[in-house]
Order: sequence, then C-alpha cells, then structure tokens
Amino acid sequence: MYVVKSPLPDHDLKTVSEALHGALVDLVDLSLVAKQIHWNVVGPRFRSIHLQLDEVVDSARTHSDTVAERASALGVPPDGRAATVASGSGIGTAPAGWVKDTDAVRTMVDALGAVITRMRERVEATGEADPVSQDILIGITADLEKHHWMFQAENA
Amino acid sequence: MYVVKSPLPDHDLKTVSEALHGALVDLVDLSLVAKQIHWNVVGPRFRSIHLQLDEVVDSARTHSDTVAERASALGVPPDGRAATVASGSGIGTAPAGWVKDTDAVRTMVDALGAVITRMRERVEATGEADPVSQDILIGITADLEKHHWMFQAENA
Amino acid sequence: MYVVKSPLPDHDLKTVSEALHGALVDLVDLSLVAKQIHWNVVGPRFRSIHLQLDEVVDSARTHSDTVAERASALGVPPDGRAATVASGSGIGTAPAGWVKDTDAVRTMVDALGAVITRMRERVEATGEADPVSQDILIGITADLEKHHWMFQAENA
Amino acid sequence: MYVVKSPLPDHDLKTVSEALHGALVDLVDLSLVAKQIHWNVVGPRFRSIHLQLDEVVDSARTHSDTVAERASALGVPPDGRAATVASGSGIGTAPAGWVKDTDAVRTMVDALGAVITRMRERVEATGEADPVSQDILIGITADLEKHHWMFQAENA
Amino acid sequence: MYVVKSPLPDHDLKTVSEALHGALVDLVDLSLVAKQIHWNVVGPRFRSIHLQLDEVVDSARTHSDTVAERASALGVPPDGRAATVASGSGIGTAPAGWVKDTDAVRTMVDALGAVITRMRERVEATGEADPVSQDILIGITADLEKHHWMFQAENA
Amino acid sequence: MYVVKSPLPDHDLKTVSEALHGALVDLVDLSLVAKQIHWNVVGPRFRSIHLQLDEVVDSARTHSDTVAERASALGVPPDGRAATVASGSGIGTAPAGWVKDTDAVRTMVDALGAVITRMRERVEATGEADPVSQDILIGITADLEKHHWMFQAENA
Amino acid sequence: MYVVKSPLPDHDLKTVSEALHGALVDLVDLSLVAKQIHWNVVGPRFRSIHLQLDEVVDSARTHSDTVAERASALGVPPDGRAATVASGSGIGTAPAGWVKDTDAVRTMVDALGAVITRMRERVEATGEADPVSQDILIGITADLEKHHWMFQAENA
Amino acid sequence: MYVVKSPLPDHDLKTVSEALHGALVDLVDLSLVAKQIHWNVVGPRFRSIHLQLDEVVDSARTHSDTVAERASALGVPPDGRAATVASGSGIGTAPAGWVKDTDAVRTMVDALGAVITRMRERVEATGEADPVSQDILIGITADLEKHHWMFQAENA
Amino acid sequence: MYVVKSPLPDHDLKTVSEALHGALVDLVDLSLVAKQIHWNVVGPRFRSIHLQLDEVVDSARTHSDTVAERASALGVPPDGRAATVASGSGIGTAPAGWVKDTDAVRTMVDALGAVITRMRERVEATGEADPVSQDILIGITADLEKHHWMFQAENA
Amino acid sequence: MYVVKSPLPDHDLKTVSEALHGALVDLVDLSLVAKQIHWNVVGPRFRSIHLQLDEVVDSARTHSDTVAERASALGVPPDGRAATVASGSGIGTAPAGWVKDTDAVRTMVDALGAVITRMRERVEATGEADPVSQDILIGITADLEKHHWMFQAENA
Amino acid sequence: MYVVKSPLPDHDLKTVSEALHGALVDLVDLSLVAKQIHWNVVGPRFRSIHLQLDEVVDSARTHSDTVAERASALGVPPDGRAATVASGSGIGTAPAGWVKDTDAVRTMVDALGAVITRMRERVEATGEADPVSQDILIGITADLEKHHWMFQAENA
Amino acid sequence: MYVVKSPLPDHDLKTVSEALHGALVDLVDLSLVAKQIHWNVVGPRFRSIHLQLDEVVDSARTHSDTVAERASALGVPPDGRAATVASGSGIGTAPAGWVKDTDAVRTMVDALGAVITRMRERVEATGEADPVSQDILIGITADLEKHHWMFQAENA
Repeated sequence: MYVVKSPLPDHDLKTVSEALHGALVDLVDLSLVAKQIHWNVVGPRFRSIHLQLDEVVDSARTHSDTVAERASALGVPPDGRAATVASGSGIGTAPAGWVKDTDAVRTMVDALGAVITRMRERVEATGEADPVSQDILIGITADLEKHHWMFQAENA
Repeated sequence: MYVVKSPLPDHDLKTVSEALHGALVDLVDLSLVAKQIHWNVVGPRFRSIHLQLDEVVDSARTHSDTVAERASALGVPPDGRAATVASGSGIGTAPAGWVKDTDAVRTMVDALGAVITRMRERVEATGEADPVSQDILIGITADLEKHHWMFQAENA
Repeated sequence: MYVVKSPLPDHDLKTVSEALHGALVDLVDLSLVAKQIHWNVVGPRFRSIHLQLDEVVDSARTHSDTVAERASALGVPPDGRAATVASGSGIGTAPAGWVKDTDAVRTMVDALGAVITRMRERVEATGEADPVSQDILIGITADLEKHHWMFQAENA
Repeated sequence: MYVVKSPLPDHDLKTVSEALHGALVDLVDLSLVAKQIHWNVVGPRFRSIHLQLDEVVDSARTHSDTVAERASALGVPPDGRAATVASGSGIGTAPAGWVKDTDAVRTMVDALGAVITRMRERVEATGEADPVSQDILIGITADLEKHHWMFQAENA
Repeated sequence: MYVVKSPLPDHDLKTVSEALHGALVDLVDLSLVAKQIHWNVVGPRFRSIHLQLDEVVDSARTHSDTVAERASALGVPPDGRAATVASGSGIGTAPAGWVKDTDAVRTMVDALGAVITRMRERVEATGEADPVSQDILIGITADLEKHHWMFQAENA
Repeated sequence: MYVVKSPLPDHDLKTVSEALHGALVDLVDLSLVAKQIHWNVVGPRFRSIHLQLDEVVDSARTHSDTVAERASALGVPPDGRAATVASGSGIGTAPAGWVKDTDAVRTMVDALGAVITRMRERVEATGEADPVSQDILIGITADLEKHHWMFQAENA
Repeated sequence: MYVVKSPLPDHDLKTVSEALHGALVDLVDLSLVAKQIHWNVVGPRFRSIHLQLDEVVDSARTHSDTVAERASALGVPPDGRAATVASGSGIGTAPAGWVKDTDAVRTMVDALGAVITRMRERVEATGEADPVSQDILIGITADLEKHHWMFQAENA
Repeated sequence: MYVVKSPLPDHDLKTVSEALHGALVDLVDLSLVAKQIHWNVVGPRFRSIHLQLDEVVDSARTHSDTVAERASALGVPPDGRAATVASGSGIGTAPAGWVKDTDAVRTMVDALGAVITRMRERVEATGEADPVSQDILIGITADLEKHHWMFQAENA
Repeated sequence: MYVVKSPLPDHDLKTVSEALHGALVDLVDLSLVAKQIHWNVVGPRFRSIHLQLDEVVDSARTHSDTVAERASALGVPPDGRAATVASGSGIGTAPAGWVKDTDAVRTMVDALGAVITRMRERVEATGEADPVSQDILIGITADLEKHHWMFQAENA
Repeated sequence: MYVVKSPLPDHDLKTVSEALHGALVDLVDLSLVAKQIHWNVVGPRFRSIHLQLDEVVDSARTHSDTVAERASALGVPPDGRAATVASGSGIGTAPAGWVKDTDAVRTMVDALGAVITRMRERVEATGEADPVSQDILIGITADLEKHHWMFQAENA
Repeated sequence: MYVVKSPLPDHDLKTVSEALHGALVDLVDLSLVAKQIHWNVVGPRFRSIHLQLDEVVDSARTHSDTVAERASALGVPPDGRAATVASGSGIGTAPAGWVKDTDAVRTMVDALGAVITRMRERVEATGEADPVSQDILIGITADLEKHHWMFQAENA
Repeated sequence: MYVVKSPLPDHDLKTVSEALHGALVDLVDLSLVAKQIHWNVVGPRFRSIHLQLDEVVDSARTHSDTVAERASALGVPPDGRAATVASGSGIGTAPAGWVKDTDAVRTMVDALGAVITRMRERVEATGEADPVSQDILIGITADLEKHHWMFQAENA
C-alpha cells in the first residue's frame, strides 16, 4: 500500500526514482564539501573563494530540496542522511585541514565535474519516463555547469 | 608552523577545540536529520511539522557555520565532511522512509535532547579556557532548548 | 484575418490551443474550489489547511494567467469566463457549506489528481507541436504534483 | 446546531447574509470578467487597459475574500463556486474573443455600474441589521466607484 | 480647565468616554490573555495555535493603542494600567499553568466572545454621540469577529 | 450632458458635492500651511516640530487626494487650484517669516481646530445623502483629531 | 538681528533670495496645477496622463522643499502660502472642470515651459552670487526639462 | 509527571524559575506603564517622549516574550496575567490622568531603576544554576540600562 | 588546449555554439533597438510605449547575459561587441530620428518577429545536441513571444 | 518644424548636441566592452573582475540613458544604434576570445581613459552653451574617473 | 612614477589636492565631534539632539569617503589618520565630559560654521582647476549648510 | 554630584570604566586605520581588500558606539575625540601613501592582533566588576577574532 500515489507507472517510476536518489546524494554532499572548503581555504584569494563557495552551497541546498521533494511527489521517500551521503556520493573525499586557494579551486572543479557527468546521464535516462522530472534535472545541470565554468575560469 | 595564530595557549586550545569540533558534527547532523524528516513526514500534522523542521534546519545551519568559523578563528581547521558527521554525531540514526507525524515529533525531541546534553557539557568545559567560545555555545544552547520545548509541547 | 499572428502552422496550433484552453479552465476552477474550501473548512486543522489552500490559490491564479497569455501569444483568444469554467472544468463540484478538515483534504487530493491527469496528457500532446508551450505545461505540472503530495501526506 | 455562532439575531442575520452572498457572487464574477478582458483586449490602448484591469482584478479578489470571510464570521458558509457565480452574478456575460479597446472600456463601465447599483442597495439594507457588515460594504463601494470613474473618464 | 479640548459636548463625551475606556481595558487584557496561552499551550496543535495567538496579540495591541489615543484626542486621559485592567476586564481569568490545545481554543472562543458582545453594545451606544469614535469601534469589532470565527472553526 | 455619471440623485449630489469641495480646499491649505511652518519654525523645539509638521503634510496631501477623487467618482470635477484655495480656505492666514516654536504649535492647534469643526459639520450633512462619502469624511476627521490632540498636548 | 546667519554677503544674498523665492512659488503652483489636471483629465489617454501627472507632482513637491530649505539655510524665511502662490506664480491659471486629454497635455507643455524659462534666468542670475544655490537650480531645471520633453513628445 | 522535561536539576530549577518569573512580571508591567505614559504625557516635550516611550514598550514586550519562553523551555509554565502583574510587579503604581513631561521622565527613571536593581540580583542569583538563563538576563539588563541612561540624560 | 572544458562532444558543441552565438547577437541588438525607440518615440501613446520598451530592454539584457554565460560554460568564448552585433544581427536597421508611435509599434513587431523565427530554428537545432541549452532557448522564446503578442495587440 | 522645442538658441544647441551625441556613443560602447570582458575574463582574479565589470556596465547603461534623454529634452533625437556605436566610439576594439585577468584590467584602464579624455573636453565645450548639460557631463565624468582609479589600483 | 595617473596637469592637481586634503580632515573630524556630543549630551532636549547628531555623523562619513576616493581618483593618496585629523582639523576642540543640550547646539553651530567657511574657499579655489572636484565640494557644502541652518534654528 | 547614576559601586566602576575607555579608543582608531587602507590599497587584490576593509569599518563603528553608550549608561562620559584617539590607541601608526595589497593585509593582521590582545585583558578584568559590560566585550572580541582569522588566512 502507498502513502503518496505516483502519477507514473511502476517501470518509469523505478528509472526516475534512481535518478532522483542519485542526484539528492550528490547535491547534499556538494553542499557539505563546499562548506568544508569555505571554512578551510587559505591564501591570497581567500575572501573571493570563501564567498564564491557560499553561492555553491546555496545552489546545492536549494537543488537538493527540489530533488527530494520531487521524489516525495512521485511517492518515493527520499534519503539524505549523513551515512547515505557518505557512502553514496559521486564526489571524492575532500581534503582535511587548511587548503591552499589554488587547491581549493581545483577541488571544486573536480567535484562539480563529477556531479555534472552523472547529472547528464540522469537527464538522458529520465526523458522518456518522466519529462517533468527531466525538466528539473536539466535546470539543475545548467546551474551546476555555470558554477563549473567559473571555477575553471579561475583555474586558467 | 601555523596558518592562523591562536589567541589561546595550547592547553586551553585543546579543550576548546574538542568542544567546537563536537558541536560542529552534532549541528551538521541535526540539519541533515531535520531535512530528512521534513521530506518524509506524513500524517494530519504534515504541514505544521514540515514548516517547523525548516526552522530547525535554518538554526542548525547558522549555528554550524558560527562554530566552524570560530574554530578557524582559533587556528583549528574545522571538519564537517559527510563521513566525519556520519561517524561522529551524537544523534541516533534517523529512520528511513515515510515517518508518521507523531514519530517525527518524537524523533526530534530525542535528537535535540541528545545534542543539548552534550552542548551543556561543552559550555561547562570551556568557561575557564575561553569565555568567548563559551558565550557562543551558550547562545546556541538557548536556541536549541527553545526548539526542544516546542517539540515537547507538541508531544504532550 | 488575424489580430495576433501565430508562430505555429494551423495543425499544430489546433493541438496546442486545445491543450491551453483545457488547462486554463481547469486552473481557474482550481482557484475557485480552493478558495471555497479556504472559507468553509472547519475542524481542529482549520488554520493549517486555511493557509495551505491560499498557496494553492496563488499557484492556480499565477498558472492560469501564464496559460491564458500563452494562448494570446499564439494568436488564440483565451476564455476564462464563469460559465465556461462551470461547464468545462475537469474538477468535480465542490461541496456546499461547512467542510470538515478531513473532507477538505480529501477534496483537494481529488481535485488536484483530476487536473494532474489531464495536464500530463496535455504535456504529451504538445511536445511535437510546440515545445515552448509544452515547457510551460511541464512547469505547471511539477508545481501541481508538489501540492498534490502535500495533501496526500496529510491524508496519510 | 451551528458551527460558528452568529452575533446577530436570526432576522438580522437573514438580511445581512443575503447581502453578503450577493456581494460575493458579484465580486468573484467581476474578477473573472476583468481577467477575461485583460487577456483579450486589443487596440492602441492595449497596454494601458491591460494594466488597469489587473488593478480591478486585485480589488475584486481582495474584496471577495473580505466579504466571504465576513459571512463565515457571522456563521453563514459562503458560496463562491463557478456554477453559483455563473448563474447568480449581476454582471452581463462578457464578450468572447478579442475585444477592441474602446469596447473593453465600455464593458467595464457597464460591469462596474451594475455591481455598484446592487452594492448601494446592500449598504442601505444592512445598516439596521449589522453596522459592522455595512461598514465593510461601504468601503468596497467607495473603491468600486473609484474604478468606475476611471473607466468613465477614459470613455469621455 | 482642560488640557485637550474635546470636539464633543459634555453629554456626548461622557457616553463616548465610557465606551472607549471599557474597550481599552478589554483589549489590553485580551493581549495579555492571548500571550499567556501563547506561552502555555501544549498538545499536537501547539505550533498552529502558538502562531495564531500572536496574531491576536498583534491585533489587540494595535486596537488598544487606537482606542487609547482616540480617548486622548477627545480630551479624556486613558487608563490602561495593570490594576485597572485586572479589575475592569470583561474577560474571565485565564487558567494558570500548561493548557491543552483544545482548552486553549475554547478559552479564546470565550474571551473573544465576551469582548465582542461588549464591543457591539459600545457601537450601539456611540452612534449618536460621536460617529467618528463609532467608526473606530466598528472596525475593531469586524477584526475581533474574524478572529472569533477562526477559533470557532477550529473548535468544530 | 455628463462625463462621469453620478450614482446619486441631484439633490443628494449637491449636498455631498459642497461638503467635498469644502474639504478639498481646507485640506490643500492645511498642507501648504504646515509646510510653511515646517520651513520657518525656529527655537529649541525646532527639530521635533519640523518633523511632526511633515506628518501633517503627508496626512493632508493623502486626504486631499482621496476627497478630490471621491468628487470625480461622483461626477463632480474638483477644484484645488491656488486661487480657489487662497480665497476659500477655512484656515486663517499663516504668519510670514520665522515663527517661534511655541507660536508654531499654537498656529497648528488653531488651523487643525478650524478644519475639524467644518469637517464635523460635513460628516453630519452627508450621512443621509451618501454614506460612502460620509465614511471617507469620518476617517479623515479621526486622523485630524489625532494630530490636533498631539499639538494640544505640546501646548500644555 | 538675524536668526540664521547667511554665509553670503548682503548683495549676493539679495540676488539669490529673489531667485529662490521665485522658484519656490513656481514649483508649489506647478504641484497644484498638476494635481488639478490629475483629477480632472478625461479622454482615452486618461490613465496614462493621470499617472504621468503624479510624477510631476512628486518632482515639484520635492524640488519646492529643497528650494525652501535652501532659502532657510541662507537665512531667508521662505514663503509658500496659498495667497503668495496664487498671486506670484509664473504659470497661467489652469482651466476649471473636466479637461480633455489633449488639452491636458497642452496645458502641461505650457506650464512647464513657463517655469523652465524663469528657472534658466535664475540659473544665470545666481552663478556669481552663490554657486551652491546655482547647482541646486541647475539640477531642478534638468528634471523639469525632462518632464517638458515627455509632454511635448506626447503632443507630437 | 512533567510536560516539558527540564535540562536542570530540581534545586537549580527552583532558583532560575524564581528569577525568570520575577523578570516576566516586571517586564510586562514596564510595557504597560510605558504605554500609559505614552498616552498621557503632555507638555512641550510631548512628541519626543511619546516616541521614546514606544521604544521602551517594544523592548519590554520583546524581553518579556524571551523570558517567558525561556521559562517554558525549562519546563516551568510562565504567568503573565493581569492580576499576577498587578500584584507582583516591582514598579510603583503609575500616576492616573495627564502627566507633565518632566514628571513623565522622572516616572520612567524610577520605573527603570527599580527593574534594573532586581535584574542585577537575578543575574547574580542564576550564574551558578544556569549560565544559559543568566546570559539572557544579562542581555536584557544591558538594554534596560541603556534606556535608563537616556531618561536620566533628559532629566539632567 | 582549452580553458574551459566542454561537457559536449565536438560535433554537438559546434551546433550549439552557433545557436548561442546567433542568439547573443540578436538579443544584444534587440536591447539597442528597443532603447533607440524608447528615446525617440513621439505621439499620443509616447508614455505607454516608452515604458513598455524598457521592459523589452530588461528582457533582452537578461537573456543576452544568460546566453553568453551559457556559451562560456560550454567552453566557447562569447562575442557581443558592437561591430559583431552591427554586422550579424537578424534585425533590420532601426530608423534614425523621431519615430511616430504607430511606427514604433510596427518596428517592434517586426524586430521581435525576426528574432523569434530564428530562435525557433535554434530550439529545433539544439534539442539533440544539448537539451540543457535548448531548455534555455525555449524559455527565452516564450518570453519574446509574449512581448510580440503585446505589440501586435497594440497594432490591432 | 520641430517636435520638441529646444530651450537653447541654435548655435548653443549645435555645440551641446555634438557633445551629447559623442558621450552617448562612448557610453553605449563602454557597456558593451565591459560586458564582453565580463564574459571572457579568465585567471585567478576571474570572480573579482567579473563582478567589478558588472558595476561598470550598470554605470554605463544608466549614464547613456541620462545622456540620450537629455538630448531628447533639448529637441535632438539621440542615436545609439549598433552601427552608429561600432563606427563612432572612442574606445579601441576589445579583444576577441578569452582574456587573461591582467589583460582585462589593462583593457579597462585604456577604455575608461579614452572615454574620460573625451568627456573632459565635452565638459569644457558645453559650459558656456548649457550649464544644465554640463552639470550632467560633470557628474558622469566623476563616476568614470572613480572606476578608472579602481582598475589602475589593480594594475599597480 | 605614479600609481594612478591624474587626468589633471601638475599645477591644477596641486590646487585640487590641497582642497581635497583639507576637506577630508575637516569631515573626518566633524564625524568624530558629532559622535562625541551624541554620546555626551544631557538635558531636556537629549533625545532630539542625540538623533540629529547621528544624521550629521552619517553625512560627514559619506562625504569624507567621497572626498578621499576623489583624491585617489586624481592620483593623490588621501590621509585620514587620527594624528593627521587631530593636528589639521579646522574645528576647535570639542569639550570633554557631559555637555548641556544648549551647549551642544552651540558647539555644532560653531563646528559646522568653521567647516563651511573653509569649504566655500575650496569651492572658489577649484573651479578653474577641476570643475569635477568643484561640483563634489559644492554638493557637500549645500548639505553642510542645511545642517547648519537646523542647529541655528534650534539656537534661536 | 552625578548626571547619570551608576548601577555599580565606585571600585567596580573604576575598573569597568578604564576597560571601556580603552576599548573605545582602540575601536575608533581601528575604524580610521581600516578606512585609510581602504582608500590607499593598490595591487591585484585591490577590490577584494577594499571591500573587506569596509566590513571592518562597519564592525568597528558599531562596536565603538556600543562601548561608548555603555560607558554613558554606567555614568561615565566617553571620550572619542581625535586627539584622544591619536594619543591613546593601541594600534601602531598606519603607513602614509599608497599601500601594496600584501602590506595592507599584514597591517590589518597586526592592528587587529593588537586590539584583540587588549580586549582579552579587558574581558578578564571586568568579569567580577560587571558581567553586563564583560558580556559586551566578549561579543566584540568574537567579532574581531573573526576578522583577524580572515586577514591571516589571506596572508597564508
């Protein structure tokens, strides 16, 4: 028996639900990694990167909320608990301790790159099954790619 | 060699640094647990608890930022990564899947109670070593105890 | 002779125009039904549902305006008059008089469910003919399904 | 048995309740008619009238809410459903399709004039029975007569 | 000799002054009672009622200020001191200690009901003597009756 | 032939039209007198009175606009030109040149007193003819009497 | 003996004081004339001109305040009373009664033109005597010429 | 059995609870006394003191809410009812009727002085028992002493 | 070697890059053309069209920024320099000198029509290559078609 | 025949009109050049310069609007079309493609320097002919010189 | 070698640079003196003067920033350090300790008078050398003379 | 005789008064030093440090106001005049002329470090004498240590 009745047939629901679950875990971790570096970055570009990272945190928090509530709306209970995030994220472990500003930028280029690759696969996977969820994932991908460009530009 | 020079002598720094690290981990986890239930709560009181939990999330996020930046200001690099939180939090694991509203309230009463007990120990531990850090922990405890009262009142 | 020249060929315009007309009628009625229950709901959850319904009203009014102006932009004069809405809406008649809060929630679950089913058909119907209109309908569907989840969650 | 106990004796309540019901139906219809023309007006004065009509819509929505909640406060469940509005409104049917700007102004002069005449009768009818409701109806009439002047001035 | 010269003749002033004094005492007490329950309510509807009561407090504070300054404007020094309120209020004593949410609603229905009955008598008493003061009392009554409906609706 | 058709019969219109015309002239003059003293007041209480007078100016400007647009709404073209105001105002000529603060307060007590007396006569005159206009004049009188009290209180 | 000591020698003060007095009278009258037409304009462009005139009123009120307070700052008590304005303004008498929209535009073109001509003479007259006052008059002229252009453009 | 479980042991709770109860009663009375004088003050400094008193009212209301909710958070139901305030306040009875401005200032110096003395005793009493409550009382004392200075400065 | 690494393979990148470049040039030119007419329009509808054109300018500026930053995010440096715009825009040359209001509307209908036709081709061209870019172009097209309708409606 | 009558004699008008035309072209180009580099800058200072350039864009857009509307107010139709800007700007062609941050700063130092030199000539040229236009050009020059300093400071 | 290249030739630069340096020192001192009296004023007019002084502080801070950044923009490094201000200010030493309100007003009349005299000399000195800097100094003088009038008016 | 009566006994007052006086002088100087470097910093990090310094200025101004008004509230007239600051500040003299960005950061690390050391001594000194003042100094120290970390992080 269900609590929230899905507007999707079972097969499609399975596809979309996996995509949303993966996106949720990646986005929660992205918010934690960006905060970690926000606190630990040092070097001449400290202030600039410190502020830029809070914009990534805001994006990641907003998008994770959208994705989790989309799962609920499809009748699938979302899971964004610490242990789930720690084991399931597509982002490599962020370094411990102070991080030089150049390393901070490189870490973010990698983290965003890893999430974007997986988001594009999810966009592709969901188009048939649920154009509504796909549209949400497309919007998030556009935003992440914008952040990605900015850190790459700083890396040049 | 240090990056940020601490205003505290080594012994006091150790005491304060442990208190701040513990607080950071608890508060990040509190924000994740409250969001998890925000997404999964069901039952007649859904809307009320859904909104109330976002106020806990806001508090926990703000306080974790304050605590982490206080550690940085004392020369101690903070650690709020997913794995650190998953293993070090003082809050028990939140349930997976949909949560009935009455269970949601009880889970929050327990989670807040666990964090508050540890925060009061940290307030006691840091008074001698650093009244500045203690004052921050006191302010956070007051706010958590207010949230705790509200969930207990709903539980009555 | 036309007043506003459509960017679409005749055949596509017919398809899209029917979808937009149907959506307009459903959304205007949704706003009237939600207001009706907003005024008449009684029971212990009165305040919570009273407020929640005004959020549905806001959504429905905004979306109906978007849909009607989209029709105008395609050269099709929209029709959202009371009689058109009374006869063409996909939502069943709302009950007269005071409504117990549990009945209010159930009425909204049904009303939103009926509109969503028709919106998903319109999303499917318009993809070929006009991706611009389809994108608008997708966005509205996402929002309605979020409201639908919330009332179902309260129903659990 | 009653849900909300009226502060008025039965006879007065009947008088006031009829006045409020009539006002509610007229005001909901006024909001629908003004939106209909907002979407369909064409001609050199399009933009000016398009914007002016949204101010009428805002007034009519706010006033219909006030009147309906006043009925509830008196213990009378309000009825603003599409079919009730379609059959009970004092405003003549608005034209279908594009409307020339001069016709749009004339339609609004007529619609507002019809509602104002009935509102003045309600003001007169309720003075004895309930000065509180009368005061609300007086305030609405003042606002409608201001809109009426503006469309008449444009008509000159 | 007077400080502020009244625009009313002595006889009318006496009537109006009694009405305003009574209204002031009732409204100050209403703000204290609503705050008392705001702090002491417990039960599953805690949050909803806690918030709703602060809206009553805001209304009562605003209205008591309006009424007191109206008295001053008529040359009558207002009296809203604790002892005057404690002895002169038309509201029964609020319960001490924690209040179950259902009892909280009932207490507010009674308190608002008591004030409204007296306000309607004041509206009737002042019409001849001073239509300006009467208009102020009418506006306050409308607002109190709206709050009264909402608590009754929750009581249903 | 008319431009704006009045909702009132001729006889009532004449009564109301005279009341509104008188009110308009008084209120425009009140705004000019208050500004004049705002610029010319001197003495230890300069700043306090300078600021207080701008609140009278704001009130008088807002009320004059309301009254003039009410006349228009009744089909009577309003007249607020300098010469009309100079010859028709009920306020005595304000003094030229610097004004001591105590004199400034006394001037305002007199000016407001003169306008209030005439406004109360207008309230009385219009009740039968047009309760809508009367309600507007009542609201303005309440506000003027509040300003009057404040200047009298300063005069004590 | 003076109240406010002027930073200017007597001869310069006389020049500047005349310029500021003339500007004050013109600007107060401009605000009254623009309001008069704001209330009385009729015709198809009613709404557009009605709104545009309130922007002129705002400008004229702000500028008259600046000019009057500049006179005070130079030790010259300003005079903006109704009779002074009625007799000293450089603007011709505005028409009484309803004004057709085309006439309204023409009236404003003439009124602004008359004030601008005099303002340019004042700019020229004050440059030597007081560059601070001249700078204020230059800024006002720029703004009036912008309003003048807009009404001329509508007149084309 | 308890409703809200206190984080404090019984002995400490008794100490803190008395301090908070006393503070609540004093602060509610301070808000009533300040409003009373806000309405009744007369004399040349009327406006200045009238405004200043509303800042005291705002402070007192905010602080009383903080203190009452702190009591609730410690498991102690707060009591701020009119009769409790009338009998338990540390502030002497405010005078009835109009108050000359110099007397108004003196009354506030005394009232604030009386509350501050008792607040400093509460700060001292609670330090051991509950540093969280003490920190709240310290913050309130700082604010009251700032208001106290301002009224004393006016008294000089 | 690249500065910003594209998430797209070379072939798709070429397609998308041409679409974005064309859109950028059209949108920058649209903002310049709309400003040109904003400054030069004359005639009775001056004010209405003057304001409407600034809304087109705002849209065009926002969209050109979105499109240019999307190109950067795909690793393609955007080109929106004056010479590039002058030679590459799809909009015909706007007329020099004053423009009658009817001509202004016609010019905008044509300019928007030309851009929309090209935008729809770009929507079609990019769907396969990059759904993220396509979604951005769809949103811009919807907004441009809304502006197009409004100018056509004024043309009727 | 003219559309907008100039307040200046022919000879002065020619001088001022050339100055304003030159300023308009330079300022529109400045906004395009700054946006171009805003999109294309790369290097460690990317974020800082990216944001700083948008402040230049805002300044340039606001000033170009002021200058163009000043021309209109003088009866001279402004010309800010792409081709006019491309051929008439005093700024050298901005580089195509990605721009290293140090080059970006140097480009802006040069561009602002070129515009400032010409603006100072225009200030000198217009003083006799029209102090109102001169005052506008002086204000713009002050703002551009502030931006110029900031880029030079970064260049040091 | 220079850091910021001045747009002025050496001789003019020397003149302007002295004027700006003098203005900076005076304005920083004005902000310190006004704050000093803001904290120390006592007497019946305490509140009014306390607030008025913060408006002087705001003006002085804003103007000192404008003047200092203008110096930087001309290539002259500004100097606003405490010792420079203490030795170079044109304002006499403010009194230590509590200041009676009448003395406070007199002190500000003198301080503002001293700065204004020097500002007018700077306005005169810079007109030839740099009309842009002169325009800034003129604007500041206007504002200071307005504050001067207000304190003189209070002194009357 | 006193003006403001201190809530502290003489001995404690002396201790606290010295602490507050020292803090005031340091904080005013900090605001002047930070502004000095805000105006004079040059180098690639100009913009970032320029903005960061204004946040220090805002903090220092707010804290100096709090500390000075705390002294007044304790009955001790504060002294923040230029000469007092120049001679009594704990911060070394800031360099004259342009400052390279790396030197600017180092200057701020030293200045903040010097103030923090003294603030921690003041926190220690005042705990016994006045916990209210101590609490204020603790809050300021926390904020200064946060700024200190940020400049140190940039120095790494």
